[in-house]
Amino acid sequence: MSSHPRPVMVASNRGPVTFRVDDAGQLQSSRGQGGLVTALTGAMQSGGTWVAAALTDGDREMVARHPEGRIQVKADDTSYDLRYLAFPQAVFDGYYNNISNGLLWFAHHYLWDTVHSPLFKEDTVQAWEDYISVNRAFATALAEEASRLPEPPTYLIQDYHLSLVPHFLRELQPDALIAHFSHTAIAGPTYLRIIPDRIRDAVLRGLLGADVLGFHSEAWAENFLMSCRYVSGARVDLGRSRVVLEGREILVRVHPISIDVAPMRELASSLQARRLRQQLNRWRGNARLILRVDRMELSKNILRGFLAYENFLRRHPSWKGRVKFLALLSPSRQEIPEYAAYTEDCIREAERINTELGGEDWTPIEVRIREDYLGAIAAYGLYDVLMVNPVFDGMNLVAMEGPVLNRRHGVLLLSRNAGAYFRLGRYAIGVNPFDIEGQADAISEALEMSEDERTRRSRGLSRLVLANPPARWIRLQLDDIERVRRRRGFSAA
Amino acid sequence: MSSHPRPVMVASNRGPVTFRVDDAGQLQSSRGQGGLVTALTGAMQSGGTWVAAALTDGDREMVARHPEGRIQVKADDTSYDLRYLAFPQAVFDGYYNNISNGLLWFAHHYLWDTVHSPLFKEDTVQAWEDYISVNRAFATALAEEASRLPEPPTYLIQDYHLSLVPHFLRELQPDALIAHFSHTAIAGPTYLRIIPDRIRDAVLRGLLGADVLGFHSEAWAENFLMSCRYVSGARVDLGRSRVVLEGREILVRVHPISIDVAPMRELASSLQARRLRQQLNRWRGNARLILRVDRMELSKNILRGFLAYENFLRRHPSWKGRVKFLALLSPSRQEIPEYAAYTEDCIREAERINTELGGEDWTPIEVRIREDYLGAIAAYGLYDVLMVNPVFDGMNLVAMEGPVLNRRHGVLLLSRNAGAYFRLGRYAIGVNPFDIEGQADAISEALEMSEDERTRRSRGLSRLVLANPPARWIRLQLDDIERVRRRRGFSAA
Repeated sequence: MSSHPRPVMVASNRGPVTFRVDDAGQLQSSRGQGGLVTALTGAMQSGGTWVAAALTDGDREMVARHPEGRIQVKADDTSYDLRYLAFPQAVFDGYYNNISNGLLWFAHHYLWDTVHSPLFKEDTVQAWEDYISVNRAFATALAEEASRLPEPPTYLIQDYHLSLVPHFLRELQPDALIAHFSHTAIAGPTYLRIIPDRIRDAVLRGLLGADVLGFHSEAWAENFLMSCRYVSGARVDLGRSRVVLEGREILVRVHPISIDVAPMRELASSLQARRLRQQLNRWRGNARLILRVDRMELSKNILRGFLAYENFLRRHPSWKGRVKFLALLSPSRQEIPEYAAYTEDCIREAERINTELGGEDWTPIEVRIREDYLGAIAAYGLYDVLMVNPVFDGMNLVAMEGPVLNRRHGVLLLSRNAGAYFRLGRYAIGVNPFDIEGQADAISEALEMSEDERTRRSRGLSRLVLANPPARWIRLQLDDIERVRRRRGFSAA
Repeated sequence: MSSHPRPVMVASNRGPVTFRVDDAGQLQSSRGQGGLVTALTGAMQSGGTWVAAALTDGDREMVARHPEGRIQVKADDTSYDLRYLAFPQAVFDGYYNNISNGLLWFAHHYLWDTVHSPLFKEDTVQAWEDYISVNRAFATALAEEASRLPEPPTYLIQDYHLSLVPHFLRELQPDALIAHFSHTAIAGPTYLRIIPDRIRDAVLRGLLGADVLGFHSEAWAENFLMSCRYVSGARVDLGRSRVVLEGREILVRVHPISIDVAPMRELASSLQARRLRQQLNRWRGNARLILRVDRMELSKNILRGFLAYENFLRRHPSWKGRVKFLALLSPSRQEIPEYAAYTEDCIREAERINTELGGEDWTPIEVRIREDYLGAIAAYGLYDVLMVNPVFDGMNLVAMEGPVLNRRHGVLLLSRNAGAYFRLGRYAIGVNPFDIEGQADAISEALEMSEDERTRRSRGLSRLVLANPPARWIRLQLDDIERVRRRRGFSAA
């Protein structure tokens, strides 16, 4: 569907650029990594504004120094405005730590220990007010920015932090063209009954303020649609994947994202990456390498990964000393108590396994907890088995990054509960992430797999990843919106 | 739909009668309480057999003393055969404790602490074989018993313990008329992905061996239907609530069960019950009474009930000394570690609250953990507030028993996640069971409610319960089966 490209307004919690103040007091900026930034930036060829929350001290300083927190950014052949919104710390904390990451994230990934948690109290009530006010501020800023454009833009709202924005924006601009994309897993209607009723209702109605809602997998889209059946006044057509509310039709679409391969490959062939690879290779010696790369995140299932590896070693003792497990983990959300406790659990279990099974010249598991993107890029080249076993995961990009950078026809061990499984599953070894025995069997199968089969699978994985570049992800979304626009024009004619 | 009544075969884990050997070495039997036994017994007017597992030493002794473990039972105006199946302890343990109560029950009530549990290992694999063999034994026994009847019976299979029976029975008797009823909540398709794939698939296909599947609420029926979309070869029609698999049509029906009021009222007016009520009344003094009656069960949300009451007392200190919370809890599944730990948690929290808020002449919470059906019957008469706040619950009969026996126009505080809420919700105060603040508000609202409003609501509750006797529940199921039978006859003609 070709059409005159329109200005695009993007909104996300984290912006594409991070600011810091250098020693000379000057603002310095660095651009975020990843296909999402590239794709969304690419969509702003005809101008637009990216609205995001100020996250760092540098971000807040940028807001303080510029009128309305707005600056112009030049990226590749595009130029767009960037507007950061600074919130009082307490408000941001309620919006971000309590509601977004402590409530919605837990709900959508089924992370609660339901017999004991959650316990909703006064703090939830207060934090919900914060979430509302931040979402309202985003909608207001988007509408303001749009008023500076020569023609009405397309709005691309990102993720669970901003689930009320479509609704608030619709109130301000009834005819706006709004798409929202959820990058997480999405809970089904029964589990969603855990969260307080008015929060659940507001989140669902908030999202339904959009014209198009995007998800990474059919499973998440379906869960969303089923939940909408409990929104009063909403009519859900599961077969045609749409909802009608207050006379408006909302399309629910599945557009799995992929990664931007070229810059990753470039980085992987840099001198620095090569040096890191050499170091890792020396460390690995003659052993086979099982790798995992994750945020230190409850949903990533790091603990059960270690237990499965232990189970594998106990049942296949001939592999002792001939395999090493490297866990590259970046710190995440340590201000949430469950995350801090989980980090300790993971370290303790790895140490126990090392003590019980390791020896003087062999340590079964190496855990590295730090920000080290380049280290991960380097390690991707070297694995024999990549373990990606999340409990639940919206998509999972590690499962894509590994295969396009790996040089040993390494095998992907992939949770069937990751969105990525629906795309890559046929070339991976699928696992149930709760099944220790099954994951141990999968490690064994991966290590024993013939070279031919490994080659066939790793080529298949690369091909699938390369066939779906981020630009395609964004184009399909803009096509959806274009279709909505034309239909509207048609109805009006 | 009137029709010639046919013999009925019932299968359930727990039978309607419990045996024990008395001091003289004679077998003594006692009949189980509750509307389910009455309803299913009532369905066997034209003969039939009830097949169940031998649970007690007395049950096993009965099996040892009678050919094939079969005896005849006379109940009211009905006479039917009872056949108990005795299994080796290890097999029963795998089938009952591990798979039925440790896996399927946890799955259907969303009870796992998913970040840490479950961990499926070798014991799950072994226990699953036990579950298969017990389910197969039930199917074989049913088919044997049916062959002794003058005409083909209707099979009524009960609950999650026996989810494979419809499939195995269908293999033995392709034309059998089989209904299965699930008395629990039912998890949605995403949460069900936690359990090992072949167990999930076998359970769903096992149930789909029936002609009619019954559930207590639309929510559970809908979750089941959505899960069936992932069964290969199954076509699900959500709107018409049916599944087609291997050319057979399976109807999914919602028949909420109710309670048998007359015998409960009779018991409540017995001399013994009256004495217990007098004792309780003296204990309560001038205080208002909040009551809960439950098994000591993870899904019943006992802990959060105490926390909500604590929250209420802290925010409304004028109620201190003027209200008492009585928790009547019967011991349950203490051989499952989570249950033993939960019991301790509940006792510890109640003690903490009593220490922190109570005084010399007032103890805020009284916890009684023992089998005491009559005590519960007596206490129902006296409550001002009945707290029924399960995390998730298939139906919940306490929410029905209380209102028909209460004499004070007591208020029902009811979880919106209980099947009963869909029937009784309009006369209850609905609560989100995870919301401590909200439940505290509900306690306050209940205690402050006007006499008129309490009268209106308690009458409404009694009316709804009385309008749906267990005999109706069973008749609707037999009508479903009769419809299937006629349709089949029609197709054959």
